Order: sequence, then structure tokens, then C-alpha cells
Amino acid sequence: MSLVIIGSLAFDTIETPLGKREKIVGGSCTYCSLAASFFTQPKIVGVVGKDFPKETIEFFKKRQIDLQGLEVKPGKTFHWEGRYGLDPNERTTLKTEMNVFKNFRPKLPPEYRSADFVFLANIDPDLQEDILSQVQKPKLVAMDTINLWIETKTDSVLRVLEKVNIFFANEEEIKMLTREINLIKAGKKVLERGPSIVAIKKGEHGALVMGRNFVFGVLAHPCEDVVDPTGAGDSFAGGFLGYLDKAQSFSQKEIRKAAVFGSVLASFAIEDFGINRFKTLSSEEIESRYGQFKKLVSF
Amino acid sequence: MSLVIIGSLAFDTIETPLGKREKIVGGSCTYCSLAASFFTQPKIVGVVGKDFPKETIEFFKKRQIDLQGLEVKPGKTFHWEGRYGLDPNERTTLKTEMNVFKNFRPKLPPEYRSADFVFLANIDPDLQEDILSQVQKPKLVAMDTINLWIETKTDSVLRVLEKVNIFFANEEEIKMLTREINLIKAGKKVLERGPSIVAIKKGEHGALVMGRNFVFGVLAHPCEDVVDPTGAGDSFAGGFLGYLDKAQSFSQKEIRKAAVFGSVLASFAIEDFGINRFKTLSSEEIESRYGQFKKLVSF
Repeated sequence: MSLVIIGSLAFDTIETPLGKREKIVGGSCTYCSLAASFFTQPKIVGVVGKDFPKETIEFFKKRQIDLQGLEVKPGKTFHWEGRYGLDPNERTTLKTEMNVFKNFRPKLPPEYRSADFVFLANIDPDLQEDILSQVQKPKLVAMDTINLWIETKTDSVLRVLEKVNIFFANEEEIKMLTREINLIKAGKKVLERGPSIVAIKKGEHGALVMGRNFVFGVLAHPCEDVVDPTGAGDSFAGGFLGYLDKAQSFSQKEIRKAAVFGSVLASFAIEDFGINRFKTLSSEEIESRYGQFKKLVSF
Repeated sequence: MSLVIIGSLAFDTIETPLGKREKIVGGSCTYCSLAASFFTQPKIVGVVGKDFPKETIEFFKKRQIDLQGLEVKPGKTFHWEGRYGLDPNERTTLKTEMNVFKNFRPKLPPEYRSADFVFLANIDPDLQEDILSQVQKPKLVAMDTINLWIETKTDSVLRVLEKVNIFFANEEEIKMLTREINLIKAGKKVLERGPSIVAIKKGEHGALVMGRNFVFGVLAHPCEDVVDPTGAGDSFAGGFLGYLDKAQSFSQKEIRKAAVFGSVLASFAIEDFGINRFKTLSSEEIESRYGQFKKLVSF
């Protein structure tokens, strides 16, 4: 198997009740590929400016992430600035500078085109569609998106949705997309559109994974101090898809495990600012927390 | 063991997106004792007016609920009127008529005073304290309350809290009481005040049960149509405490099972208006749904 991840690489300026960080490395592709790298060797597609830190590139390499699809362009890296309230789910975007992302139209490296597993992380849905068309015969395609695209490019989002097998969304996003308040109904509406799996991320309440004939619920790791919620959803997707790529199976049993590994990776991501926690994270810690997730719900 | 439940018996006028019902039987004691009756034979303490339906009294008897502590007074039964939004968690109280509840100062029947298990369901905290003082040597005391008392009688609520072993609250209530947004921190703050178990009810997200050395999460049953959310929390407490009374153990293992049975009973309560669903509910249905709760989280 091989997992190709398309998404953003960014500088994030983040304010949370526990502190502020200026221009630290972030982005959907960054979080997702790092989380996935604990299970498999993902190939990434994205763009950064000349200002992107060499240490991060080195860190990607150390984690055996394939960087053939990473373009380094003259100019500045995409920059997002946001603030979180006391409730980690309350996020305000203060600034977005597209920079090198503005005219990003990637051509997939030849080696990527035969990928059997593609994740379209959050970027412009038209770009998601374009990239997907360059993959020859993927066995499984997953996508994520955000409210911005659901509001401004509804048709494009729905068009991509019909072409994917797994759809990731948070509560707010799936409610907006399906115009349903009830999550089970919202999930079913997405399943009717094409995907066979929908994973609804619920922050501190965990996640709900729905297939055509099952519902699986995973709790969030009990966390007293969310240092930085940025990237939790992308890390969830990364852990989820990285595990599936390793398992080489999309059975219900593996989907359930994948969702737990997704939650495990998300629970680590929020323990420190940016991607810091991934720098020290070990497979042993991941396995140990997986065990804690089992205890959390066992009866 | 013997479980004494103190709370309200009421007429509820309810409007939900799925319909409206005028003056149907409700109340914290009603829901809780009916839910508990599937596991044990609860004794109730409460007051109703002459207008309270004889059929309901007969139904209580059929479910083997001990009614020695139920006063029937001249006048009208307590009446609550409320409306739910599309989101079942959005509840607006339109009217509250205290009626016979106004000067309710119960004296416990002699047989109740030796109870070893007391549940102070939602009523005025001063009344909760007064009744608790009439029980000789309870082995375990549990309490529930609502925002109204937390806001208007904070000191009384905190005084009762120090005397109980299990505290039930929903998310909003525990956040208000502890002034903490993070649920794990809020739960710990309650545990510091006396209780050894805190059960946080989270509606469609299930419930979180915290002890001094464990956290247990139970999901809500996936439900597409919440017909009437009234009494879900009281049914949760009833199933929880009824099971514990039957199990005759407060071990962590039994607390976990109790929380699941609480969720099971709550999931049935919301399937129909008022207490209707309890009229047809069977032990087989309860066991079967308990099994579904296992599948929901197994991995």
C-alpha cells in the first residue's frame, strides 16, 4: 500500500488561553503526514515558500515522509493566524495569507500516480478534485474539508464527496453540509452521497464513525489542559489513515481500530503547541495510550 | 438493600419539534423510580394533588414501586411547561406552577428511615437536606440538581454535595457549579468536595463517570428521532442507581455497568412522550440494548 496526502503546509500564529506562538509550523498536510508516519511512510503533496524551516524538512525526512511531491517556491509559506477561547472548540480566524498557495496547481510525481490510497486533506475542493484525477486507480480515497469551502464552494465539495470512500468532518461541518442537526441523520445523508465511511470528529466528546451497517463511537482521551487544539482533526485523520495503510484492510474491525489510533494521535497533538509533541512521541507511548482508550470504555 | 428516591411528581406540558402534549405525567421522581423499577423495588417520597391520574398510581404499583412516602394532597399537582428546539439540548421553561409542592415538608415513613441507599433527585436543596437528615445510616447517598438551584441556592447545593457519595449533573450544571469549562477539571473539583463518584450527563454525547482513580465514558445510543428529551437525565440516574441497588456493590466494575444501564434507560425514555415508553418496556429489550452499547464501543 502507499498513502498519498494532499494538503496545506503552513505557518500558524496561535493564541490559546495557555500562551501565544508566532509563525510555528502547521498545516493540514503537516499534521496528517506526521501522525500517519507512526504507522506507514506517507507521500506528501504540497507547497511551501523559501522561508519554510529546514529543520522541519529534516524532521519530515527523519520520519520517512516522502517529499517528492513537496514544491518549494520563491515567496512566503501560507500563513494562518487564529485565537482559541477558553472552550477549545471556539476558534476565531484572525488572518489568512495565501502566499505561495495562491496559484498552487500540483502535478503529481509519476511514482505517486499509482498510489492506492489517497487522502485529500483540507484544501480548496477544486484542487482536491484536480489532484484526484491524476491518480490512476486508487483503491481508497478519503477527504476532509472546512466550513469555508462548504459555504463558498458547496458544489465543488459535493462533487468531490461523491468520489471518496471516507469522509472526515467535525460536527459543525457535517451539520452545515447536510443541514441536519441530528448527527446520525447527518452521517446517513453523507453515506447516501457515496462514501462508505463517515468519521465525525467531536472534539472533547471523541468521534463517531458510521458505516452502512454499523456505528462506532470512540471517546476523547480525558485531557485537563488542551495546550493547542490546532491540528487535532488532521492528526486524527493521519492516525486513522496511517493505521489503515499499515493494516492493508478496510474491514469494520480495522476501521474501528483506525478510529481509536486517530483519537490517540489527536490526543497527543493537543498536548503541546504546533507539531512539538510529535518530535518526542514514541510508538510505545502510542500503544500505551491505545490501551488507556480501551479501559476508558470497557464494562 | 433498599433505594429511597425523593423528587418531583408532575404534570408536564411539552412542545418538541415532533409534537405537543398537554399535562402528561412527568417529574424527576417519576422518571427515576420507573427506570429503577426495572432492577429493584424503589420507595418514593413525593407529593401530588388530587388531580394526579389513578392510572399512573396503578402503573407505579404494577412496577412494584413502594408508595408509602407518596402524599396525595388537596389541590393541584406541580406543573411544568417547556419547549425544546431542534437541538434536544435547547430547552426553554415557559411556566412553572408549584401548586401542592409549595409547602411540601415530607416526614419519612418509619420503614424508609433505615434505607441504606438514598437518591435526592432534583428538588429544592434545602428539602433534599431535610429529608436526608431523616435517614438513619444510609450506606450511599446520591443527588441531582438543576441550574435553578445552583444559581439561586448555591450554598445549599454545596452543603448537600458534601454529604453525598454520587453526584449527577449535566455538562452545563457542573460547569456552572465549579466555574470550570474543562469537564475533567470540573469533575475533579466535585470529587474534592466529598462525592467519590461524579456522573456527567452529556445528552447525545453520552456520559462521563469519574471516580478518584478512574474515568469511564459511555456513549449515547445512536438515536435519529428524539421524541421527547424530558426525563432522560432522571431515567439515567434511575437505571444507574436501580442497577447498583440490585448489584449490592459499589465496585468500579459495577459503577461502569450501572452507567451503561443508566444510558440504556435514558435511551428508551426519549423514544416517546412522557413515561409512555416505560409502559411497554421489557427486561429483554433492556438487555438487548445493553449488548448494543457494548458493540458501539468495542474495538
